[in-house]
Amino acid sequence: MTPHIALIGGTHGNESSGIQIIRNYRRLGLPDAAQGLNVSLHLANPAAINANVRYVEDDLNRQFTPARLRSNDASQEAVLARHLNETLGPKGHSDVDLVIDIHNTTSNMGATLILLDDDAFNVQLARYVKQQMPQANILLEDEKPYNEHAYLCTLGKRGVMVEVGAQPQGVLREDILLQAQTMTEIILAFCAMSDKPDLPPCSAFRLGENVMYPLDDFGLRSAMIHHELQDRDFLPLMPGQPVFRSFDGKDITWWEDTPTYPHFINEAAYHKLDVAFASASQITL
Amino acid sequence: MTPHIALIGGTHGNESSGIQIIRNYRRLGLPDAAQGLNVSLHLANPAAINANVRYVEDDLNRQFTPARLRSNDASQEAVLARHLNETLGPKGHSDVDLVIDIHNTTSNMGATLILLDDDAFNVQLARYVKQQMPQANILLEDEKPYNEHAYLCTLGKRGVMVEVGAQPQGVLREDILLQAQTMTEIILAFCAMSDKPDLPPCSAFRLGENVMYPLDDFGLRSAMIHHELQDRDFLPLMPGQPVFRSFDGKDITWWEDTPTYPHFINEAAYHKLDVAFASASQITL
Repeated sequence: MTPHIALIGGTHGNESSGIQIIRNYRRLGLPDAAQGLNVSLHLANPAAINANVRYVEDDLNRQFTPARLRSNDASQEAVLARHLNETLGPKGHSDVDLVIDIHNTTSNMGATLILLDDDAFNVQLARYVKQQMPQANILLEDEKPYNEHAYLCTLGKRGVMVEVGAQPQGVLREDILLQAQTMTEIILAFCAMSDKPDLPPCSAFRLGENVMYPLDDFGLRSAMIHHELQDRDFLPLMPGQPVFRSFDGKDITWWEDTPTYPHFINEAAYHKLDVAFASASQITL
Repeated sequence: MTPHIALIGGTHGNESSGIQIIRNYRRLGLPDAAQGLNVSLHLANPAAINANVRYVEDDLNRQFTPARLRSNDASQEAVLARHLNETLGPKGHSDVDLVIDIHNTTSNMGATLILLDDDAFNVQLARYVKQQMPQANILLEDEKPYNEHAYLCTLGKRGVMVEVGAQPQGVLREDILLQAQTMTEIILAFCAMSDKPDLPPCSAFRLGENVMYPLDDFGLRSAMIHHELQDRDFLPLMPGQPVFRSFDGKDITWWEDTPTYPHFINEAAYHKLDVAFASASQITL
């Protein structure tokens, strides 16, 4: 059976790499890596793309839990999610073998492959991506079962996200586009292989938890990301190293007694949530 | 007479440096550089700041032409502009000696002082800023008379903008904040001097015109900023050097027969306008 791959851009309307990759593949044809695959191309949130915003009313990429998909929420993105569940799902019973959803971040995360499961397929994929693109980061978010995730890519039998930065919202950088495209085509090439290669284990990161900004009595931030942490996504943050600098000039250092691997450092989309970064541990896949 | 300086942040609600500088000065007190000055602090567009967007309905920093201020436009920002004209203006008859409006750009423009006139005050200010902060860029936008500009800062007898990048919208970077604060305090120190220093001429840039992205038959961009131009704001772009890379892989080179000094390269806020960058010539002030 020819594998069915759904390739998605514009789940967030101001993350330009995926939008441009879909437009380019539509205009110029699919890449060689797609040979032997049934690849469908999707721009997930046209209204948000048109408005050049992350979302119009609610974050589309937080709508795909079973409970949200059963709800009658009337927000534009909740309605859109139920429509996408009909075309790409239904979740848990989809004909799509893999959904690849392409994102950007304002954090300096380079090309990051986000996996939601560590089954044999995902582990083999991680090792292949890391072999073909050694500078890539592999991030495993397995804090909950695959089907409980709220991400669009979980509509497929399997789903992964390509997350590339640093790129400001609404900006298309050539260097970031090329990284997103390279990782996407490596994933397609892997899917097209009838015999998956047997590769040695690779290093990866497992999501920890969100670390919040310190807030003052008015709910406003009292500190910013320290310049020594800024742009150092996935590099070790050691106990005692600076994390925040308060606006009255004091340093706040890493308070845990083990190192962590911060990512999504100073991500613009988490502004309203006051998330400073996410922590991670180093693992082998 | 004590000079009256109005210091403004949040004219665009997702440009964080100015917003934070105003909040810090309110909370922690004015800097030493403000001694001898009557400094008022303003967050220009609270609704846009709260929503973390550039503007709610219309760009506030394009509302301050005499014609727009006489209009009955009902957009939130047009109404806000008329209110600001009452508190900081009226335009052309203000008691405010200087409005300093602090902005951010996603372009790699470093710390840039934008002047709208080349009278003796502005020239002396440019020379002083350049002496105190040699890495700063001075940009003169004098393509129209001072009062015909649509910028908020033109409510004052004089007005300048502090424009610092690269910083994504909605993100606060420590390095960018410090540059914005340093330039702001240098301007305040200049204003506080009863005898302005007599300094030698300095290099600066004069705004040319907007250079647009090439568009296809559907009105979509057919090319992106070339990686060799990206982040090279205010560096010379020579005839024949690459400007754009088309999505089908062709380079488009600088078509004029004289060099230019691009800035606002790949600025997110100009996305909808399809402005790729602004050109400039090198001048001496």
